[in-house]
Amino acid sequence: MRDILPADKARRERVLSVIRERYLAHGFDEIETPAVEEYDRLHAGIGGDNEKLSYNILRRGLDAEAIAAGAGDPAALSDLGLRYDLTVPLSRFYASNRGQLPGVFRAIQIGPVWRAERPQKGRYRQFMQCDIDIMGDDTSRAEAELLVASLDALDALGLTGATVRINDRRVLDWMLDSFGFAIEERPGVLITIDKLDKIGPDGIVAELRERGATASAVDAFDAFLRRPQTMEYNPFGERQIRKALPEGAPDEIVAHLVGIGEAVAVGGGTSSPEPVEGAIPLVFDPFLVRGMGYYTGTIFELAHPSVSYSLGGGGRYDGMIGRFLGQQVPAVGFSLGFERLVDLVELDADADSSSVVLVHDADVPVAELVAHKAALLRSLSPSKGRVRLERRVKNFKALLERSAADGYNAFATVSVGAEPGTLEIKPLA
Amino acid sequence: MRDILPADKARRERVLSVIRERYLAHGFDEIETPAVEEYDRLHAGIGGDNEKLSYNILRRGLDAEAIAAGAGDPAALSDLGLRYDLTVPLSRFYASNRGQLPGVFRAIQIGPVWRAERPQKGRYRQFMQCDIDIMGDDTSRAEAELLVASLDALDALGLTGATVRINDRRVLDWMLDSFGFAIEERPGVLITIDKLDKIGPDGIVAELRERGATASAVDAFDAFLRRPQTMEYNPFGERQIRKALPEGAPDEIVAHLVGIGEAVAVGGGTSSPEPVEGAIPLVFDPFLVRGMGYYTGTIFELAHPSVSYSLGGGGRYDGMIGRFLGQQVPAVGFSLGFERLVDLVELDADADSSSVVLVHDADVPVAELVAHKAALLRSLSPSKGRVRLERRVKNFKALLERSAADGYNAFATVSVGAEPGTLEIKPLA
Repeated sequence: MRDILPADKARRERVLSVIRERYLAHGFDEIETPAVEEYDRLHAGIGGDNEKLSYNILRRGLDAEAIAAGAGDPAALSDLGLRYDLTVPLSRFYASNRGQLPGVFRAIQIGPVWRAERPQKGRYRQFMQCDIDIMGDDTSRAEAELLVASLDALDALGLTGATVRINDRRVLDWMLDSFGFAIEERPGVLITIDKLDKIGPDGIVAELRERGATASAVDAFDAFLRRPQTMEYNPFGERQIRKALPEGAPDEIVAHLVGIGEAVAVGGGTSSPEPVEGAIPLVFDPFLVRGMGYYTGTIFELAHPSVSYSLGGGGRYDGMIGRFLGQQVPAVGFSLGFERLVDLVELDADADSSSVVLVHDADVPVAELVAHKAALLRSLSPSKGRVRLERRVKNFKALLERSAADGYNAFATVSVGAEPGTLEIKPLA
Repeated sequence: MRDILPADKARRERVLSVIRERYLAHGFDEIETPAVEEYDRLHAGIGGDNEKLSYNILRRGLDAEAIAAGAGDPAALSDLGLRYDLTVPLSRFYASNRGQLPGVFRAIQIGPVWRAERPQKGRYRQFMQCDIDIMGDDTSRAEAELLVASLDALDALGLTGATVRINDRRVLDWMLDSFGFAIEERPGVLITIDKLDKIGPDGIVAELRERGATASAVDAFDAFLRRPQTMEYNPFGERQIRKALPEGAPDEIVAHLVGIGEAVAVGGGTSSPEPVEGAIPLVFDPFLVRGMGYYTGTIFELAHPSVSYSLGGGGRYDGMIGRFLGQQVPAVGFSLGFERLVDLVELDADADSSSVVLVHDADVPVAELVAHKAALLRSLSPSKGRVRLERRVKNFKALLERSAADGYNAFATVSVGAEPGTLEIKPLA
């Protein structure tokens, strides 16, 4: 975990406020759930590998005897844990509060999650997630609203030109079935397919054979991967989807994907005053898998030409809320990779702001300093002015440079007895 | 702990953004520390009673044998815990990052803390704290800047007329010394004095006698409490402070308090274009104690005429950073009681915002809906417009009422084939 210092924190808050504003604009409502959830809920088998990475909180009030007795049973020692994602808590939230929520509920969640991962460069055990989800809508409108809102947020952050790789878990399942993979071997096959970007088609086929997957099915898959393909360009739509799949893909699933594309095509560029014409920013990828086991339909991943890694993703998880509510409710979500976005985005501090450093001699009485600061604050824009007092130091230039680095754009000097409101404000270089 | 639903979350975010804006205006910098700190740090004896209320995280990688072996030793089972305040983490932050921080560092911290308290009405085990602190300044400028900024934030929230009860731990210590209480009995005496508001002077004296405090000291204290007092009004200042104390209060401490008052007097009303004339919003209270043992100097508590309870408080804790850094650094902080403020403040949603609910017939294709929404978003203010799609339901009136309650102020209806950008927008009642 890490400390976040002022310049970094300011940049994070700027990025968050842009994302929040765009998501609110698209009719989503922000909610908040506790950082801590019940142990049983976090370990109900829906969090996938993240369940193993959860931080468990020691049950309170246990004496040494009770701890020794429960030593082999995590649930006896722990009744609470830190959330490892925002999706499991959201499903619990929806089940708990459904009576007070609209029939179609569009949620924004922005908050930290914790995973006890081995720290890698640039990754931390506490990190921010930034999710939107729509519950109660099983039509492609839900996916379209998620994608349009998220692409709009990216545009507003200056990351235009993002695209979304899209697939459907049911497509994957149908495709594996059509090749002849048995139901029980499909989860393992998907884990292998998920490596396509890394090891290529030959690597995939080799790994499937090693795994001992049904030989005839691997042959059929191999043949499909090696099929002759024309290089003609097809924009996103039914033709592209059908050409990327074996013959006979189910009409209903294809229509759902096509519907998302049509809607995203007309919804683009809502941040700009005029509609943005251009290619649909969707790419059908029949081998997109997404790790989480809870996905039941559409899945997507956000890509941007400036980086090789994904900037977010999500999908449909129509089964999860039923686990908590005892009644099925369709749900689909999209998670922005906030920590990656923050590193990528260059959002300057508001150029309109008037941020003044008041550099004072050491002998100016406190009341005079505060009076100068107050007079100056009154003269600046109420929502954008900033004033900071700094005692004069020998290295005046370094003081001004550090102030500029902290986002201040002007300064004034103060000596004993100066009249508040009469200081000369000079620009910082 | 609790879920925060949309209307409540929106109000909380509005209050937070006002507080954040005012604190930034006064030259403070926002930082963030992890929610989780090391167990040893959280239990170093500086968190007072809160240490006992901390949630401890089960050390990862312990097998049943190791757990059984460590059953009697909390530190063997737990290496991390959830923070119970923002002050201990800030001191650790300052010690860790001092080289990258300015000589006088003004910090804003806004974030959740956790305490395993028995839940009372309106109180939760996870709650927000909202602190500002100044490190590296031992003059009254630091206290004055904290108080002026916090009173300004309260003004901006519409809570004008707040006052600050102020005292100094050294005044308390000097006073108890002058009555004749021995050093070792003073912490207990302070616990009793802290109840003055509840049990009155007679209750205090009786409890001190019960406690078996030095009899002659209790007599002297009793006599001081019963001394004849004139009812003449004294504004905050040296005269008021000296009259409220036994003879001979130390000049240096009195001067420090007077200096704070002079500065707060000229710093008030920075949110308004003109200086606000009026009484200094400080009240000297020689019996203000504040619970935390780490306070070393000035202590304060925020009061508002509309409520009987405190809305925040803080004080000087010049010794704490030295615990982490091995070098003394003066520090003083002020914590707003955010959860109480949120309940008190009425901040309406921005009246300028144009929030439109698009009510559509069930048969309008998804792409048409998204096109209508996009066209409307483009026509609204980029930072304030909001558009939400709602499917028409039988009880149209209830739908509009719920939309108004959610902060929407206009609506339009959409049928199949309507041209995007041509919808008639009607105000919501």
